[in-house]
Parts: sequence; C-alpha cells; structure tokens
Amino acid sequence: MKAYDEYRRMIEQSLAPMLESLGEIPEKLLEAMRYSLEAGGKRLRPVMLLAACDMAGGDTGTALPFACAMEMIHTYSLIHDDLPAMDNDDFRRGKPTNHKVFGEGIAVLAGDGLLNAAAELMAGAALRMADSRGIRAMEIIMRHAGVTGMIAGQAADLLSEGEPPREDLVIYIHSHKTADLLEAPIEAGLALAGADEQACRLGREYGYHLGLAFQMTDDLLDVTGDEALLGKKTGADAELNKMTWVALRGVAGTKKDAAEQAELAIGAINRLPWEHGFFTELARGTVSRKQ
Amino acid sequence: MKAYDEYRRMIEQSLAPMLESLGEIPEKLLEAMRYSLEAGGKRLRPVMLLAACDMAGGDTGTALPFACAMEMIHTYSLIHDDLPAMDNDDFRRGKPTNHKVFGEGIAVLAGDGLLNAAAELMAGAALRMADSRGIRAMEIIMRHAGVTGMIAGQAADLLSEGEPPREDLVIYIHSHKTADLLEAPIEAGLALAGADEQACRLGREYGYHLGLAFQMTDDLLDVTGDEALLGKKTGADAELNKMTWVALRGVAGTKKDAAEQAELAIGAINRLPWEHGFFTELARGTVSRKQ
Repeated sequence: MKAYDEYRRMIEQSLAPMLESLGEIPEKLLEAMRYSLEAGGKRLRPVMLLAACDMAGGDTGTALPFACAMEMIHTYSLIHDDLPAMDNDDFRRGKPTNHKVFGEGIAVLAGDGLLNAAAELMAGAALRMADSRGIRAMEIIMRHAGVTGMIAGQAADLLSEGEPPREDLVIYIHSHKTADLLEAPIEAGLALAGADEQACRLGREYGYHLGLAFQMTDDLLDVTGDEALLGKKTGADAELNKMTWVALRGVAGTKKDAAEQAELAIGAINRLPWEHGFFTELARGTVSRKQ
Repeated sequence: MKAYDEYRRMIEQSLAPMLESLGEIPEKLLEAMRYSLEAGGKRLRPVMLLAACDMAGGDTGTALPFACAMEMIHTYSLIHDDLPAMDNDDFRRGKPTNHKVFGEGIAVLAGDGLLNAAAELMAGAALRMADSRGIRAMEIIMRHAGVTGMIAGQAADLLSEGEPPREDLVIYIHSHKTADLLEAPIEAGLALAGADEQACRLGREYGYHLGLAFQMTDDLLDVTGDEALLGKKTGADAELNKMTWVALRGVAGTKKDAAEQAELAIGAINRLPWEHGFFTELARGTVSRKQ
C-alpha cells in the first residue's frame, strides 16, 4: 500500500482530466466546476476508495474514475450546501464560495454537473470492465449519496434548523450527511477489488464509525479550532443554532465520544484479513486533526 | 406495440413506487420530489424509451426503471430551472413551482435527489441484468443529461441571457437543453433491446430532429398558444428576452422550420428495420400539438 499523500496526488492529477474527458463543456460551467473541485481539501473520500481497493489487492488504476467520482459528489454537495437557500456560506476552505464567484444560477448547475459527471464517469468505466465489479461499486456510491443517504441527511439538517438538539436527530444527520459518504468509498473500493460481502460489511462498519468520529471532531473544531488553520470562521454552528454533537454533549463529552467511535472503527477494520495499518492510522488521525 | 397512453400509464403507475423502493426517504423531501414528479405532463421521454425498446423487440418491464429514471432527470431539470436564480418561475403546469411550495432549500435537494435517484435506480437495474445492456443504456442517459448535454444547454441558456439572438447559439441551446433529453430515451430504449450501433445512430438522429421540432413548437406556443391549455402564461420568453427560434425566424419561419425538422426525424426513423408508425405519428403530433 502507498502513503496517504501518494493516493492524494493520484487523485489531484486526475480530477480535471477526468472531467474534461467527458467532452466539450461550456467554458464558464467548466471553470465553476474546476474552481470548487480544485479548491483542495483532504481528498479523504477518494483516498479511502483507492486505499481500500489497494488493501484488498485490487487495481488502483481501475478504481481511479470511481475515486474521482466520489470527490465530485462530495464537491457538488458542498457547492449546493453553501447556497443562500441552504447554509448561506460566503467562504469555504479560505476561498469565496462558488455562488459568490459565479452567481447562484451557475453554482446550481455546477453542482448538478458534478453529480451527473460522477455517474457518467462511473457508468463509462463500468461499461469498459469485463465483470460486474464496476456497476456494483457505482450502485454502492449512488445509494450512499442519494435520498436514503447523504441527501437524506442534508434534508433532515435543513428541516431541523432552529429546533433544540435531540440525540436521535443528531445521529441521523451525522450518519447520513457525513458517514454515508465515508462508508461508500471503502465499500466501493473493496467491491472493485472483488472482496466478498462480509468484508464489505466490515468496511461499511469502519466507514460509519469513522464518519461519526469525523463529524464529532468537525463540531469540536468549530468551537475550539484555529480559524487560520481551518480557513473559515469558527462558532458558525452555534450562531446558526445547528444540530451538533457539541450542543448535545459539550466539548469534553464530544471528545470522549469521538475517541470511542475511532476505536469502534479500528475494531471493525481489525477483523479484515489484510494489512490495514493505513486505516488504523486514518482513524486515529481523524480525531487528532487540527483542520 | 402499444398506444402512447398505455406506455404513459405504465410509467405513471411506476414513478412513485420506484422512488419509494429506494428505501426510507425523509417525509418532506419525498413529498417535494413526488409533488413535481406527479405534476403530470406528457411523459414524452419515458414513453419514447419504452416504445423504442418495444419496437426493437425488447422487454418493456426491464426498460421501466430506465424510463422512470428519464422522467426523474427531466423533472429535476425543471425544478432547478424554475429556481429564482435560474428562470424564476412561479407556476409550472398550472401549479405553483416546487420552491414556491417547499422553499428553495428543499427544492434544490429535491432536484439533487431526483437526479441521484435516477442514477441509483439504473445502477440497481443494471446490476440485476445478466448482460451489459443496462449499463450501456445508463451511460447513454447520463451522458445526454450531463455537462456535455442537457446541463451544457442550461448553462449556455443562462449565460446568454440578455444577448441578442444568434442562430448558432439558439441551435446550441435547443440541441442540448431539449434535443439531448429526446435523443437519450430512444437510443437507450434501443440499446436495452440489444439493437446495433447503426440502429442506435438512426434513433439518435430521430431524437435530435424531434427535439428541435419540439422546442420550435414550444417557442411558437409561447407566442401563439392558449394559456388555459398550456397551464402557464404566454409571452414569458419575450419578456425575459430568451434566445428562442421565434426571436430569430419569426412565427411563420419557425412553423416552416419545425415542420421540416419533423420530416427529417421521420426520414431517420424510416430507415429502421422495424414497424415504426408510432414514431412517425409522434413526430407529426409534436408540431401540431396545442400544449
């Protein structure tokens, strides 16, 4: 297996070429999609997909379009989430948000375009594969991204604004809005390597707990983090009265819960038959990160 | 082959069950998606998909998820197109638009949800099929709906607002915004029936000319149509200074061009080896319709 930054480099070198491989895209639309796609970030989701595929003995080259699709889905969700009708954010990763630069209409289309491009890339890649691994991976990713997955979490988040935090709702929102897009890449990566259902289930379990640990840490950083490192203002969740783990459990309780979720993730990955130091480290790093 | 209304009934009976088959969807989100999905309309795109598959000897039952996906994609594009940041429409098919009823945030998510649901449904259906016909149909549909297809047309339309009508731009917008979503169902329906590349090409050609004829007629109806029949105000295009065929060619010129495009569509379909009266009639009906 490779180091995190090697997978990350593979993805960053492929995102724009994959998008442009689709054909002639109107210049302004392409520019808007690339603006958000190339704004950086940790590339956590596509890295997980490549690493999971690699761990289980699959070919990372074959997995690359699926990894890029994962990042396109994540990016579209951020563009739409930042819109005035949603979270109304002016900055993301230290840069003006998509609609601030390109206008709301193009931001809506850039988001639509990235979601469609993700499905189109995966369908094209699956069509070129000799077996059903590609279509299996695609089905996993679209399901976790969809109306019973990430979009369900977005809707619940939006609809519960202003309500007092409730544990069942916070878990619902975190598990869909965040964990579903971390379950998808590890399960899809394993599926692309031809792993069996039992391994996929353990991968999903890892992704679920990692997702909760990740979101709890995000909620913590919004209260205790360094604005310069984060590239955004802290305290935004409290200001918007968001349904966060910190609002429910406080800072100390959230720290404890995040560490516990990271250990549960590690417990799941420990049951896989492959060398999985990468994923153990990833879970530990998720709760100790500063940005 | 069946009559138009029989295909239409098959689709109308399947849309909501297909959506709900995906799993537990937040109530308000499901309601918003169903509101627009069940607002009626001609169901032209999914009917074309079923009819093309049927014509070429395929199984319409197998094609049904792909037909419903086609309608979900069409519906999501209308929801997003009606948003204040895009066309800013308050009414669609005689009913208040999605964001007027559910708010802009949910309308954005309902659109995202329908696009994702379309890909998810097709991926699930393709996974259950023994050969690659499903994944081939899915690739065709996502490509025509995407950033080199329908979304490209939407972006060009939005970006050219206020500019004087120019023939190349009007053709670009019509061929992507409208024709791409009429090419896709006939080509995908033929692919599902296992038709060869030559047949698919003729199907695409039919869809392209039908699409232009369809949009020219739409532009005409916006000037000369009956508001009660259309369920919307006429004259909106001129008011918004839209890039229409009528603005370019006038009413008489557009009527002539639409009839010509319908004949070109019929010319293409005539070269297919199957009984194709359905599609000949459809092309004639497209230019003579009143709504």
